[in-house]
Amino acid sequence: MMKLHWSPRSPFVRKVMVAAHELGLADRIQTMRTVAAMTNPARALMPENPLAKIPTMVLEDGTVLYGSHVICEYLDHLAGGGKLIPPAGPARWQELRRHALADGFLDLLILWRNEREKPQPLAALVEAFTLKTDAVLAALEAEIERIAEAPVGLAQITTAIVGDYMDFRFPQLGWRERCPHFSAWQRRFAERPSMRANPVVDG
Amino acid sequence: MMKLHWSPRSPFVRKVMVAAHELGLADRIQTMRTVAAMTNPARALMPENPLAKIPTMVLEDGTVLYGSHVICEYLDHLAGGGKLIPPAGPARWQELRRHALADGFLDLLILWRNEREKPQPLAALVEAFTLKTDAVLAALEAEIERIAEAPVGLAQITTAIVGDYMDFRFPQLGWRERCPHFSAWQRRFAERPSMRANPVVDG
Repeated sequence: MMKLHWSPRSPFVRKVMVAAHELGLADRIQTMRTVAAMTNPARALMPENPLAKIPTMVLEDGTVLYGSHVICEYLDHLAGGGKLIPPAGPARWQELRRHALADGFLDLLILWRNEREKPQPLAALVEAFTLKTDAVLAALEAEIERIAEAPVGLAQITTAIVGDYMDFRFPQLGWRERCPHFSAWQRRFAERPSMRANPVVDG
Repeated sequence: MMKLHWSPRSPFVRKVMVAAHELGLADRIQTMRTVAAMTNPARALMPENPLAKIPTMVLEDGTVLYGSHVICEYLDHLAGGGKLIPPAGPARWQELRRHALADGFLDLLILWRNEREKPQPLAALVEAFTLKTDAVLAALEAEIERIAEAPVGLAQITTAIVGDYMDFRFPQLGWRERCPHFSAWQRRFAERPSMRANPVVDG
């Protein structure tokens, strides 16, 4: 069994779990509940990942992998390769760029959430987060039809996860009203068994 | 020509430039000076990359790529593939995991720098950055010989860059005294023409 440092609230962990489910590998992963917050590092995790971030996966031979896209690429290879990330070529660069957009958006939202929970959030930073979020939402709304046309892959999974993350942590953004096409696609994608098997849980 | 949104102070841009030089592709990239700070998003960049992050690269056919590791993987493919990132297999996962360590460390240091420049840095966050930095430095010092034995690749490039970044922005860490093996290897790697052609410039 592979072991995965896991939390039901981390969108990056969810990405790995949804990918594993899509690839038929979910039953080869044993999850271990690990709490890792920016101000509260998971010390028990640091011998395996000194960055103390989840997801961190330990393979059967003891090799440790981290970086959610690294873990997903490993799982894709384990399932035969080219399933969730196309092989080298234009489709791969598009998939990885679209993944970088959704993944970078998650990074931004997590930093924003950390900032707003501080006693004195920095106004210039919150303004920058707002400006970039507006730009990302507009870009996703404009590109969602092309994203949806591609095969199910790392970009779609991460884009759907960021939708649920906004519902969970940023309802005030009103992203579903602002992005009707993205929202409609996201609701369909969220019905996939891989997504439903790995719900966002607050607890 | 490919166009790269570039700054001499961004370690992620430097990663792309060093990789391009190692691959013999540097003369196919036209750099465009772009200033992007967390509190000062590069608005001119947002139509191409709504996250407003550098590096962002525009290919000859207009395709936009971002995420420094995505750009590096594209360049590696352009140079024939498997040069800076091994093909699928254990060597690839090690390379990508080691890259994720150095890359995640850069992310951490940049966040730390942003935090310490605020009027009221959050003590719990600075403590967490310190704790993780200690763990990462210990891990790099312990692993540097194995990192050094691998062929020149994305992990070595990023690890060497984080060394120069610490000299530049975090001299108070005293990392060279704390990590003599990492430091000695880094000094040798920093003599490579690819590194010398892309110096860290404060200005």
